[in-house]
Amino acid sequence: MSRIAPLSGFPELLPAQRVVEREIIASLSRTFELHGFANIETRVVEPIDRLAKGGEVDKEIYVLQRLHAESGATPELGMHFDLTVPFARYVLEHAGKLEFPFRRFQIQPAWRGERPQEGRYRQFTQADIDIVGNGELAFHHDVEVMRVMVEALDALPLPPVSFQFNNRKLIQGFYRGLGIADVTTAIRMIDKLDKLPPGDVAELLVEQAGATPEQAATCLELATIRVADTSFVERVRALGVRDDLLETGLAELAAVIEGCASATSDRVSVEANLRIARGLDYYTGTVVEIFMSGYERLKSVGGGGRYDALASDGKTTYPGVGVSFGVSRTLIPLIADGLLTGSRPVPSAVLVAVGDEESRSASVEVATALRRRGIPCELSANAAKFGKQIRYAERRGIPFVWFGRPDDETGEIRHQVKDIRTGEQVDADPTTWTPPQEDLRPRTLTTTHEENQ
Amino acid sequence: MSRIAPLSGFPELLPAQRVVEREIIASLSRTFELHGFANIETRVVEPIDRLAKGGEVDKEIYVLQRLHAESGATPELGMHFDLTVPFARYVLEHAGKLEFPFRRFQIQPAWRGERPQEGRYRQFTQADIDIVGNGELAFHHDVEVMRVMVEALDALPLPPVSFQFNNRKLIQGFYRGLGIADVTTAIRMIDKLDKLPPGDVAELLVEQAGATPEQAATCLELATIRVADTSFVERVRALGVRDDLLETGLAELAAVIEGCASATSDRVSVEANLRIARGLDYYTGTVVEIFMSGYERLKSVGGGGRYDALASDGKTTYPGVGVSFGVSRTLIPLIADGLLTGSRPVPSAVLVAVGDEESRSASVEVATALRRRGIPCELSANAAKFGKQIRYAERRGIPFVWFGRPDDETGEIRHQVKDIRTGEQVDADPTTWTPPQEDLRPRTLTTTHEENQ
Repeated sequence: MSRIAPLSGFPELLPAQRVVEREIIASLSRTFELHGFANIETRVVEPIDRLAKGGEVDKEIYVLQRLHAESGATPELGMHFDLTVPFARYVLEHAGKLEFPFRRFQIQPAWRGERPQEGRYRQFTQADIDIVGNGELAFHHDVEVMRVMVEALDALPLPPVSFQFNNRKLIQGFYRGLGIADVTTAIRMIDKLDKLPPGDVAELLVEQAGATPEQAATCLELATIRVADTSFVERVRALGVRDDLLETGLAELAAVIEGCASATSDRVSVEANLRIARGLDYYTGTVVEIFMSGYERLKSVGGGGRYDALASDGKTTYPGVGVSFGVSRTLIPLIADGLLTGSRPVPSAVLVAVGDEESRSASVEVATALRRRGIPCELSANAAKFGKQIRYAERRGIPFVWFGRPDDETGEIRHQVKDIRTGEQVDADPTTWTPPQEDLRPRTLTTTHEENQ
Repeated sequence: MSRIAPLSGFPELLPAQRVVEREIIASLSRTFELHGFANIETRVVEPIDRLAKGGEVDKEIYVLQRLHAESGATPELGMHFDLTVPFARYVLEHAGKLEFPFRRFQIQPAWRGERPQEGRYRQFTQADIDIVGNGELAFHHDVEVMRVMVEALDALPLPPVSFQFNNRKLIQGFYRGLGIADVTTAIRMIDKLDKLPPGDVAELLVEQAGATPEQAATCLELATIRVADTSFVERVRALGVRDDLLETGLAELAAVIEGCASATSDRVSVEANLRIARGLDYYTGTVVEIFMSGYERLKSVGGGGRYDALASDGKTTYPGVGVSFGVSRTLIPLIADGLLTGSRPVPSAVLVAVGDEESRSASVEVATALRRRGIPCELSANAAKFGKQIRYAERRGIPFVWFGRPDDETGEIRHQVKDIRTGEQVDADPTTWTPPQEDLRPRTLTTTHEENQ
């Protein structure tokens, strides 16, 4: 068997790159847990009829079949394409054993059988948080869940990210108050503003959503409002539309912006952007899309919102609010561009040199003493010359090499440890010596775009 | 949509059970990293021709196809059914970017399209460690990798486990030295000893492997040798067979037993068991199967060995040695039997009560102060009576409830924290108070079978 080509759309990380991904996932998990979100993992398959309910996404589903299934057998299972559908099913299946409101985070891959392009993968990892209620879910959870994701992304070594919020009630109420005949179609047309010029969208609003040219112009005016504080409330009111649902939407959006404001930083900003609609039909209030500075070509790196019916079993409806962060979507380009790297490809902080194969067990003892105190280490694969063993460590990025050699005079083992970056070599005791904290484990190293050029 | 039935063969954990699984995975990862093993994750799909190479396993493969693929399109991708095949492919694909010997650990699900039974799942998580060399791999890595898994399982809250070692060179050399015509078939027949009585196996050795009745009896005698030390060497020699390969196998097996001995404990034992063969053809030296006390019905909960050709690209051969632990296979029954449980289903150590909705932001401030010092907490979903909020915490297993109430005399907020298990309530400062270490995070609680009855 000869060279192996990568499979398009299925990115795989080298060990040092995986250090970055694991650290990001650990950091996200830490923030989510500080806020009381419980981790779950769902199986990766769902019955196809459950996956296909979304309608337009069904083309992208991978279905599963046993290689030697009876010919003509109908496949019944497909791979999940997001973490929302399996979570909704999990809530229904296990509802009797969960406490509501139920906060969960889920960091798992999902699969789409689509043609891959940059930022789109056939297998990709997402990090989702949701809060789901049994029958009802107070609005303050919208603020809570969004703020948690703001804090979670603020803790990551990413380029600046921006949370762009809107509210479906605000848009719907505004369109209704304005007197537009087909509100749903109008929202779908406004959603095309990132692909079409405003003039074309105005025409579509007239042709498809039954708006007058004046109404279309007002819709576009609403969509241009984009501010980092709650001043949008007055600007919307200045457009002269009155509607109860609009008022609720304004109040909710203002509460989300205010609730997240104190968590913002140089890394994470928050805005009300009244053209954000999110195509998915199930959103009913808060909506958000997350963008990353310098990576606008990826479109959003995350998003979510409020859905008054995440799941329903006919008797009980489970409303939810959640937000998803595209781990692969964000990291793969940052790693490829060299902005994030692992400090070394192995966990080992120390390479314990081996003097000769007969004394390998003495080196094992040194390693055992170091590991007992939480210091990752490995032994040289063979008893080569020490210079060769140092190069062995160098190639792996291992910062320290440990030598135990019989003293020329006394014959006793003399232990020394060498920092191979500085060349400094000192006497050391395997039961007490500790590397500097920053060398103990591989870390994520960050470079900015400017430094990278 | 009405009630949802679980999908047979796809076990899913409730949040408190997932606490156990995550802790087990974190513990395994910790041990593997202390020994310098780097983590990787491979994509879950492989080209079908790569998965099907094993021959007899191809029936169990799940293949993937886009739901709306052209009819008659041949599926090209299948889900991996273990972590060895994808690891071998990863080594070949990325060989130029890896340092050898390459130590990796991998903890991921695998999938098999088989009929589920106890201990067998269609989706199951495995933890694999392997060391792979480029062209060559010294034998001492056999000892290393087995000892690492002994230490890893010793750190887990499991019933006692036993590592049963053998060596393919020992068996092959013995059979060859004995003069058996068809050594490969003889090994396959001996492997049936766990299903058939010895007499039947003896007959098969005669009928299928061309052994004389005397040779068959000697083979069975070899297979009965099972000791916890290196005394097997003398017992094998006493059978009177002489062969160079046998001598190598004896020396290797003795080295593995000795190398692991100092890591054994009440929880983990190590034995030479000369009837262990492992059916898979690719093993060439050390072989191991791991059993768990009280769960013999699961057969082995792990296994592995030495393979002189894990992978090959035609020019270079990559020998390897590894061992796999069945995380799902072990945990799902232990959790189902109530031997392992999570101490609570939520990460929160503290529920911050909410006096009324107007003061929710004051409760947010308390929570923020606690989280800043790494204390997971959540707020009450609503400003119910305090008794109700305490029961809200109780149902989630949250040990502490935080109250901030205006003092009757001064009007200043008086902070108090209540341990709802003891009822003790004390004044506390959100910037300094810390729960006892054992309450900070959910833990795994263990019960023995005896306590459970």
